[in-house]
Amino acid sequence: MSKKRVAIVGASGYSGEELVRLLLGHPQVDLVAVTSRQYAGQSLAAIFPRFGHLPAARALKFTEPRADELARQAEVVFLALPHGVAAEYAVPLLAQGAVVIDLSADFRVSDPAVYKDFYAHDHPAPTLLPQAVYGSPELYREKIRQSRLIASPGCYPTSILLPLVPLLRAGLIGTGNIIADSLSGVSGAGRKAELDYLFVECNESVRPYGLPKHRHLSEIEQELSVAAGSRVVIQFTPHLIPVNRGILTTLYTHPTTAIGDAAAASEFSARVGACYRAAYGQEPFVRVLEGKALPDTKNVVGTNVLELAWRVDPRTGRLIVLSAEDNLVKGASGQAVQSMNLLCGFPETAGLI
Amino acid sequence: MSKKRVAIVGASGYSGEELVRLLLGHPQVDLVAVTSRQYAGQSLAAIFPRFGHLPAARALKFTEPRADELARQAEVVFLALPHGVAAEYAVPLLAQGAVVIDLSADFRVSDPAVYKDFYAHDHPAPTLLPQAVYGSPELYREKIRQSRLIASPGCYPTSILLPLVPLLRAGLIGTGNIIADSLSGVSGAGRKAELDYLFVECNESVRPYGLPKHRHLSEIEQELSVAAGSRVVIQFTPHLIPVNRGILTTLYTHPTTAIGDAAAASEFSARVGACYRAAYGQEPFVRVLEGKALPDTKNVVGTNVLELAWRVDPRTGRLIVLSAEDNLVKGASGQAVQSMNLLCGFPETAGLI
Amino acid sequence: MSKKRVAIVGASGYSGEELVRLLLGHPQVDLVAVTSRQYAGQSLAAIFPRFGHLPAARALKFTEPRADELARQAEVVFLALPHGVAAEYAVPLLAQGAVVIDLSADFRVSDPAVYKDFYAHDHPAPTLLPQAVYGSPELYREKIRQSRLIASPGCYPTSILLPLVPLLRAGLIGTGNIIADSLSGVSGAGRKAELDYLFVECNESVRPYGLPKHRHLSEIEQELSVAAGSRVVIQFTPHLIPVNRGILTTLYTHPTTAIGDAAAASEFSARVGACYRAAYGQEPFVRVLEGKALPDTKNVVGTNVLELAWRVDPRTGRLIVLSAEDNLVKGASGQAVQSMNLLCGFPETAGLI
Amino acid sequence: MSKKRVAIVGASGYSGEELVRLLLGHPQVDLVAVTSRQYAGQSLAAIFPRFGHLPAARALKFTEPRADELARQAEVVFLALPHGVAAEYAVPLLAQGAVVIDLSADFRVSDPAVYKDFYAHDHPAPTLLPQAVYGSPELYREKIRQSRLIASPGCYPTSILLPLVPLLRAGLIGTGNIIADSLSGVSGAGRKAELDYLFVECNESVRPYGLPKHRHLSEIEQELSVAAGSRVVIQFTPHLIPVNRGILTTLYTHPTTAIGDAAAASEFSARVGACYRAAYGQEPFVRVLEGKALPDTKNVVGTNVLELAWRVDPRTGRLIVLSAEDNLVKGASGQAVQSMNLLCGFPETAGLI
Repeated sequence: MSKKRVAIVGASGYSGEELVRLLLGHPQVDLVAVTSRQYAGQSLAAIFPRFGHLPAARALKFTEPRADELARQAEVVFLALPHGVAAEYAVPLLAQGAVVIDLSADFRVSDPAVYKDFYAHDHPAPTLLPQAVYGSPELYREKIRQSRLIASPGCYPTSILLPLVPLLRAGLIGTGNIIADSLSGVSGAGRKAELDYLFVECNESVRPYGLPKHRHLSEIEQELSVAAGSRVVIQFTPHLIPVNRGILTTLYTHPTTAIGDAAAASEFSARVGACYRAAYGQEPFVRVLEGKALPDTKNVVGTNVLELAWRVDPRTGRLIVLSAEDNLVKGASGQAVQSMNLLCGFPETAGLI
Repeated sequence: MSKKRVAIVGASGYSGEELVRLLLGHPQVDLVAVTSRQYAGQSLAAIFPRFGHLPAARALKFTEPRADELARQAEVVFLALPHGVAAEYAVPLLAQGAVVIDLSADFRVSDPAVYKDFYAHDHPAPTLLPQAVYGSPELYREKIRQSRLIASPGCYPTSILLPLVPLLRAGLIGTGNIIADSLSGVSGAGRKAELDYLFVECNESVRPYGLPKHRHLSEIEQELSVAAGSRVVIQFTPHLIPVNRGILTTLYTHPTTAIGDAAAASEFSARVGACYRAAYGQEPFVRVLEGKALPDTKNVVGTNVLELAWRVDPRTGRLIVLSAEDNLVKGASGQAVQSMNLLCGFPETAGLI
Repeated sequence: MSKKRVAIVGASGYSGEELVRLLLGHPQVDLVAVTSRQYAGQSLAAIFPRFGHLPAARALKFTEPRADELARQAEVVFLALPHGVAAEYAVPLLAQGAVVIDLSADFRVSDPAVYKDFYAHDHPAPTLLPQAVYGSPELYREKIRQSRLIASPGCYPTSILLPLVPLLRAGLIGTGNIIADSLSGVSGAGRKAELDYLFVECNESVRPYGLPKHRHLSEIEQELSVAAGSRVVIQFTPHLIPVNRGILTTLYTHPTTAIGDAAAASEFSARVGACYRAAYGQEPFVRVLEGKALPDTKNVVGTNVLELAWRVDPRTGRLIVLSAEDNLVKGASGQAVQSMNLLCGFPETAGLI
Repeated sequence: MSKKRVAIVGASGYSGEELVRLLLGHPQVDLVAVTSRQYAGQSLAAIFPRFGHLPAARALKFTEPRADELARQAEVVFLALPHGVAAEYAVPLLAQGAVVIDLSADFRVSDPAVYKDFYAHDHPAPTLLPQAVYGSPELYREKIRQSRLIASPGCYPTSILLPLVPLLRAGLIGTGNIIADSLSGVSGAGRKAELDYLFVECNESVRPYGLPKHRHLSEIEQELSVAAGSRVVIQFTPHLIPVNRGILTTLYTHPTTAIGDAAAASEFSARVGACYRAAYGQEPFVRVLEGKALPDTKNVVGTNVLELAWRVDPRTGRLIVLSAEDNLVKGASGQAVQSMNLLCGFPETAGLI
C-alpha cells in the first residue's frame, strides 16, 4: 500500500514538534511538508536538533504556509495553529480536497455563539461546523472514520471527558456539582517567549490560572451535555506545575445512588469499575487502574495513553475520578494521529505504540 | 533580657532542620540542645553543611533524646517527632516544667476517639489533651500566650483553615460540600529513604495520594466545625508535585447567598474581601491578594507567609479560595516559632522576618 | 524469520526498565523472561505501570533468576546486575549456549589486576575475559558480530570514548593532559532507596562525587590506550545534576599541532571535522554538530544518539570536545540492544529508531 | 546611629530583586529608591509579590532612573544594570557625591583595551577606572573600605577567584594549564523573555554555552595575574543546568611540586589545607570543607557563603579544587552588600547572616 502524504501547518510549536516526531516514525505516512513563517527555508533538523539523525528531518525544509500548495502536496493536513487562524487554512484546504485534522479550538464547539462567548471573536467559518467531528476516538470512532474535518480535542478536555462521559452515559453520576481540578506541565503554555514561562518563574512554583472561566469549558460542557442528555455546567480550575509534560486531573462527582456506608460505597465502586471496563476494556489507549494504583503522569508521558482510577468516599458521598495523560500526545498530537489512523483505514495504533 | 534556652527533639528531619535554621537566627533564644538518635555525637554543622559557617552550628552536637536532661537544659522544647512518639516526651517534659511545642499530630485532635480513628492507635496521653492549644496564632493568639503545650498545626490544615475559618465564622459559606484540593512539595513526605521519593520517581511526575481519608482531616474538620458552630465534613485530596517546598490549596465552597448573576457575584466577592481584611488586615503573616494576582508558592517559600486570593463564579454559584504557603515554615516550623514568640512574650515576628 | 527469544536478568532497575521498553518494542525479538528476586511472581505491568497498555507486559511475570532455566528459555540473555554478580550468571549461561550481553562492568576490563584495583575484589571469572568484546558498535562492530559475550560499556565511558577515540587514532591530540568533566542525571545512581538520591536532596542541587578515581576510569583508560597505541591516563570528574536522564561531557585535550593563532586554530578545527565525518558520517547513532550548535542532553534523551561538537581555542591552544547522550539508552540499554542487533544479524537500528 | 540611605538602579532583574531582599532586611540601611523604566509608578510589592507582607515594600514605588534625583536621595547607589549602561549612571552619581556599587562589568577590568576586546565596545568611562576597586572583600578588604566606586565581581569570577587566588599567591600551583569548568543555574541568564530560557527548554536539559571566550575571562585572568605576579591565561567553560540558583565550579590545576605518589600527594594536600585555613579561617563567608565533604550548591543557596574543597590526584599529578556559591548572593548582590558594609563601617556580616 502506498503511503499517505501528510503535512503540518504550524510545525514549530510544542504540539507541532510532537506531530513531527510521531509522523516521522509512522510506518504508513510520508511527511511531505511542514510550514513555519519564522523558520521557512531551514530544515527540520536545524530547528529541532533531536531529529537530526533521521534522514527525513535533514531533507525536509520548513516552507511558508500556502493552502493551495499544501493541498497539492498532501492528502492529510494537520493544523497546529492558534484558534481563529486555523479556520483560514481549513476552508481552502477542504475546498481543494484535503482532509484536515485541526488541533486548534476552531471546530470543536458546534455552536458559534458559544465559541464567540469563550473566544471573544466571531467564529471564522461557521458553515464548516456541521461537517466537523470532535476527534475523540474513544467517543466518536465511527464518525471519525467518515469525516474529512477533525476537530481534535484540547488537552484538558481529553483528561476530563474520557473519565466522565461513560459515567454520565450510564447515569451513574449526577450532572450538577461536577468539579475538575487540573494540573498541567508548562509545555501546555506553548513555545512563547514570555516572562511567565521562564524556567526561574516556573521551577519551584505552583500556581492556578485562568479561573473561573477557562476557554476549554466550552468544549468540555458541550460534550458532557451530549453524554448526559441534558445541559451540564462544571467548575474547572487549571494549575501550572513545574514539569515539561503531563496533565493530572482530579474530578469530584456525585453518584446518583446514595453511598452513605462502606457497603454501599463498595457496591457503587464495583459498578463504576464495570462501567469503565465496558467502555474501555478493549481500548488500546485508555488504562483503567484497579487495586491501589493511582494515576501518575510519569507513567503516561511520551505515550498516547490516558490512565484513570477512582475512589468512592462514604464520608462525603462522592465519587472521585483521577486521570493522567501526556498533554502533547493523548492531549494533542497523539490523539490527532489516532484520528488520522481511523479515517485513513490504518490500524488505530499505527505509529503510536 | 536574657535569652530563652530552647531545644529541639528530633532535629534531623526537614522540619527539624528548618527549626534549626530559624532558631539559630532568632535574636531572643539560645539553641542549647538538638537530639537525634542517628546522629548523636556529631555536630549540627557536620549533618547540615549549610549551617557550617555559623559558630553555634559548629559548637552544638546532637545528643540522644533524654527528657530529664532536656528539661534541665531548656525552657522551651520543640518536638519534631512522629505522632505517637511525641507524646512520650511531652509527658515528662511538661511534668518537669518545660514548655512544649509539638509539631506532631499528638495533641491537635481533642477527642481521643477521633485520634484513634485516624491514627489507628490509642491516644498516648489523653489526660494532657485539655491543656493543649491548637497552635494557629491567627486563630488562637490569646490562648497560645497562656499555654504551656502547643499542638502546632499540620501543613495541609494550615493551608485550609486560614482561608476557610473567617468565612465560616462570618457565615458567608455553607458547611456542606467543601472540597480542598492540595498540591504539596516533596519535603512534606519527610527525609525518608523510600523509593517513592527518589528524585527520578518524583521529577516529571504528579500524583494524588492518601485519598479519600487522609489523617489531616481529623484536625481540619475539628477546627472547621469549631468555626462554623456545627459539624463540618469536607473532601480533601492531596497531590505530590516536583518542588522541594510549598503547598498550593484550591478550596471549593458554596456561598450562603445566591450569586447567580455577575452583579450578585461581584457584591458577594466584595463581602469576602471585607471579611478577609477584617480577619487578616493586621496579620503580619497572612497576605490577602486583591486584583488579578493569584497565589504562587514561589512567593512564599522561605517565609512564614500564607497568601490567599478568591474568585466568585456566577456560572456555578461557587466561591473558590486559593492559598499558598511554605509547608516547612508557615506549615510547620515557622508557625511553631510564631507560637513560641507569643508564649514567651517576644515580638510575634521575631526571627521570622 | 522467527523472532529471537531474549531474557533480562535483573530487570527492576532503571537500565532494566529501559531494556524492557526497548525489547517490548523491538520487531525481531520476543521478550520471554524477566527476573527479579524482589518482584518474582508479579507482572511487568504491575511493577512498571507505564507498560500496562501492552498485552505482553500484562502477560509476562518476573521470575527468580535461575541460569539453567534462562538458558533453556532464551537465546540471548541481558544481564542488568551489579558487578561481581553478573559474572555468576554469565558463566553458566555461556556454558549452556546462550549469548550474553552484560551491562555490568564485569567483562569490560581485560586485565583482572586492573579490575581488582578499581573494583576492590578479585575478578569473578577471569577465564572468560579473552572471549568478551567491549560492546561499542562504533568502535568494535565486526568483533561484536562474532562474539557471544558482550561487555556493554558504561554510561560515562561511552560519552568520553566516542569523542576521543577517532582523534587519538588519527594522532590529532596528545595522550597526556586529557580531562573529562561529566554531568549526569540521577537515574545514573540506580533505583536505590538512599537519602542522597531523594528528590529534595537532588533538586536545586549540583555536586561532584567519586573523584578523583572513579571506577569507570579503568575501562576509559583501557580503550583510550588501545586507540592511542600507548598508555593513556586521564582526569575524570563526575557531577550529579537534577535531571532524570542525560550525560553531558566536556573534554579538554591538547592538539599535537600548535594552534597559536586564529588561522592555525581554524585549520585544525577543519581537520577535526574531517576526522569526525570520516569516523561517524555514516553512523546512525552519532550526530556530529557543525556550525554554532552545541550538545544539549534534551536533544538526545529517549534516543540512542550521542551528539558531539568541538571548539578550538587559540588563546589556550586546546581542543575542547563536548558530547551528550542518554545515560540509560546510548549509555546503557540502547547500546546493548544495538550490539544484539549486530550479533543477531538484524538491521543495526532495529527497535532503536 | 542613623541609617544609611541606599538606592538601587535597575531593580527589576534577578540581581536587583535579591538586592531588594537583602536591603529591606538590613538593619542599618533604608532603601529609599528603586528604579525601573518598565515598572515606574508601581510598588515593589506589586512587582515582587514575595515582599508584599513588608510595609516598606508596599510603600516604595519604582521610579524612572534619574542620576541627579538619586544622588539627592541616597548616599549609596547600587547599579544593577547591563554593562555599558551602568557607567552612564556612575559618572554623574560619583560627581554628585554618592558612593556607587556597580554590579555590572563596567569597572571590573582596569585596562580599557581588554574591556573593548571582551565587550566589543569602547569603555564608556575610562577616566573613572583608576578609582574603582574590585569588590571582592576577601581579596581587597582594605581597599574597599577606602573606596567610593566598587566594581562588584561577576558570579563566575567569584567562584573561580576565591579558590585560586590563595594558591597562586602562595606559589602552590602553576600559572599554566588552569581549567575552570562551571555549572550555573538559569537565573544567571537574567529575567529575559527569550525562548532559550523557557522552562521547557531548560528543564531536563544540560548544555554548555559561551565557550571558549566568555566575557568573564577578562576579569578572571586580570585578578589571577595579580595574584600570581605574572600573566595567567585560563580555560573557562560555563554550562547551564536546570536549577534556579547556584554555581558549581571545578578547577583543574597543576601543583608546583611533583606529587607522583600517595605520600607526596597527601603532604601537598596538607599544604593546600594550611593555605586555605590561613586565607579563610577567619572569613565569615568562605567555608573550607575538610574530610569527605564536597561542595553542593544546595548548601549555599540563599546565603552569602562560598564553600570549597580540594582533592589531590597522584595518578595525574593534579590538584582539583571545587567551589559552590549562590550566583545571586555571593556571586552578585550579597557580595555587593558585603562591600557596602565595609565601606560604610558596618559589621561585615550585617544583613547577610
